[in-house]
Amino acid sequence: MKRNVLIIGAGGVAQVVAHKAAQNNDVLGDIHIASRTAAKCEQIIASVREKGSLKVDGVLKAHALDARDSANVVALIRETGAEIVINVAQAFVNMPILDACIEAGVAYMDTAIHEDPAKICEIPPWYGNYEWKRREAAAKAGVTAILGVGFDPGVVNAYAKLAIDDYVAEPESIDIIDINAGSHGRWFSTNFDPEINFREFTGTVYSWQNQQWQENKMFEVGQTWDMPVVGDQKAYLTGHDEVHSLSANYPKADVRFWMGFGDHYINVFTVLKNLGLLSEKPVKTAEGLEVIPLKVVKAVLPDPASLAPDYTGKTCIATLVKGKDKDGNPAEVMIYNVADHKEAYLEVGSQGISYTAGVPPVAAAMLVADGTWDVGAMKNVEELDPKPFLNLLNKIGLPTSIRDAGGERLLTF
Amino acid sequence: MKRNVLIIGAGGVAQVVAHKAAQNNDVLGDIHIASRTAAKCEQIIASVREKGSLKVDGVLKAHALDARDSANVVALIRETGAEIVINVAQAFVNMPILDACIEAGVAYMDTAIHEDPAKICEIPPWYGNYEWKRREAAAKAGVTAILGVGFDPGVVNAYAKLAIDDYVAEPESIDIIDINAGSHGRWFSTNFDPEINFREFTGTVYSWQNQQWQENKMFEVGQTWDMPVVGDQKAYLTGHDEVHSLSANYPKADVRFWMGFGDHYINVFTVLKNLGLLSEKPVKTAEGLEVIPLKVVKAVLPDPASLAPDYTGKTCIATLVKGKDKDGNPAEVMIYNVADHKEAYLEVGSQGISYTAGVPPVAAAMLVADGTWDVGAMKNVEELDPKPFLNLLNKIGLPTSIRDAGGERLLTF
Repeated sequence: MKRNVLIIGAGGVAQVVAHKAAQNNDVLGDIHIASRTAAKCEQIIASVREKGSLKVDGVLKAHALDARDSANVVALIRETGAEIVINVAQAFVNMPILDACIEAGVAYMDTAIHEDPAKICEIPPWYGNYEWKRREAAAKAGVTAILGVGFDPGVVNAYAKLAIDDYVAEPESIDIIDINAGSHGRWFSTNFDPEINFREFTGTVYSWQNQQWQENKMFEVGQTWDMPVVGDQKAYLTGHDEVHSLSANYPKADVRFWMGFGDHYINVFTVLKNLGLLSEKPVKTAEGLEVIPLKVVKAVLPDPASLAPDYTGKTCIATLVKGKDKDGNPAEVMIYNVADHKEAYLEVGSQGISYTAGVPPVAAAMLVADGTWDVGAMKNVEELDPKPFLNLLNKIGLPTSIRDAGGERLLTF
Repeated sequence: MKRNVLIIGAGGVAQVVAHKAAQNNDVLGDIHIASRTAAKCEQIIASVREKGSLKVDGVLKAHALDARDSANVVALIRETGAEIVINVAQAFVNMPILDACIEAGVAYMDTAIHEDPAKICEIPPWYGNYEWKRREAAAKAGVTAILGVGFDPGVVNAYAKLAIDDYVAEPESIDIIDINAGSHGRWFSTNFDPEINFREFTGTVYSWQNQQWQENKMFEVGQTWDMPVVGDQKAYLTGHDEVHSLSANYPKADVRFWMGFGDHYINVFTVLKNLGLLSEKPVKTAEGLEVIPLKVVKAVLPDPASLAPDYTGKTCIATLVKGKDKDGNPAEVMIYNVADHKEAYLEVGSQGISYTAGVPPVAAAMLVADGTWDVGAMKNVEELDPKPFLNLLNKIGLPTSIRDAGGERLLTF
């Protein structure tokens, strides 16, 4: 049994994590929130208190933390007595936080692969470049480290595991489809940190097909998907974390990630990219000022957190697995969640994208707290039992549905 | 008779001015080039020497000059003995340079209206906000100051004057149509300083119609024009300098300026503008750096000077005057020039846009030098005799053509 949670990060996802952790603090114990700017943590705490999210009386405290230095993180873990660290900071600091958890002997979880700010496009599998290099250290220390336990990666990996366990014993393809059919009402905005958002799409698109990595350009391969609730939606082959772990765990299947984009987003992205405004390399203005263009683009775009109050519509994120069942007959199943932006805002003050990313790590933390997922080793989500995870998500805000030959219906276990 | 020329500015237009002045230094005398960065003047001088543009042996010299301070300009005028100043610097420094010429008692000419860097959109007539306030001072000092003597404004004003003098005695409309049917081969580029280029299109579009100022948005009013040589071309109602002086001189006529734009330009412009990236107000990055977005856009775009070697195709800039002739019969005449990007590059190392802007002030300087246009007062181009000007332009690279009921033909006087 592990208790006391340290949340690192203070963005839109951290806000959801804090609310959900507070709603379940009878299981999780003390809740600490740390980021470089303590004031941002204080804002989240004020929002948690305002909504009365704390289930039982308990500690809810803000901390200033420079997580780039592992020693700072170790010190804060010890100071707070946290046994579970939920890392929802920028992905640039995954490794120092992971190292700190291994050193301090506490559980670690994150929602995205580590990124080196200086590198846009790394060689797959991306987990192999950073996190997986600590597998042995984590096992030796008996530390539970759950990688990529947001929605995608995260819940979609659990969907894949469930689909293969129960419906498609021999998977031939695993397609993850992420559709945001909501509307924020602005001329243009990214749904999360523009710096991270655009980085996802500026490099080579890697997918796993015919048992090898296939390279494409962004927006080169698109198709219209018939999705539950939100209907026909155009989505494009995109590089994404879960392709790298699922392809390692199911190497015989094609593994692809598809993200939905409207023509407007693609146009704005294309203009910015082709002009060089998404570059992370500094340019010098005529006046001699060194500036990173992407940081200026970020500065002029709406703060994604500001979108929440006006966001309407739904998201639908699905894992579609095709192959053969245990008897060798063709089988196909789509497992998915539909979330509503407005409902998310009313509950935790965030839009649906942050909500779907922030609820799953809290479920994972609860499963680590009660021992179910406290496996004492580094795992990607498809390497863990999906049923207790999805069952818990059903209860705390992200219900799982299935579409197969029998139609569409909620799944419970 | 006036001699010795001081060119202020060292951009693409200044390069053309320097070459053309050198080609006519038997008339113009010593040639001095000054800009904030003397090295840029040295580059221009190297190009003039490389092409052997100097007609006769003579002075050709670079100077460093901060033209924001009028006293610096006066000092340099006195040091060089220049009697004619050709101001082709950024339009932000027109007023200190004009004031210096009045103080030093030398002739002044420029190619664009003064702009306050802090103001995007001023109230018409723009000349009335700055230059025309010095009319009395110029007259008192007997200083010739020719405003806006590039191509547009400039040559097109002379076309209007000629059309009204000789063909359409009662003008009902004066439409200036600026078409660049050339191709620079880049994904996107402005043809001159992006900071100036975009400023032209971010504010309200003013046109003079029905004897009053009409306000439109950029790209709101467009039409396809049948143009000589370059054929059908889409152009949009745009605010432009010459509308402000021509409407003062011909208040009964509608005066409109139309600039040609491709859909690609409009799309890129619209994205940048709507995102706030064309703003001149500083934004603060997440790291706390204060940056003016437009200056970053300028930094990532190609240097317009770099386009010249690969530029192909032609420009066509025309003044179309409709109304009644001296007998009261309907009359219509288009007077125009067609310039070729490649030919301009081969002659002076610049593309056609810079060429059409840079040759006219040299013609004007030659007419001031020989006394023809040395009128000892401030004038816009339509207030001067157009024929010697257009005749001289015929000889030095910008021939004038006419299209009327009699067809299309070259015009000489």
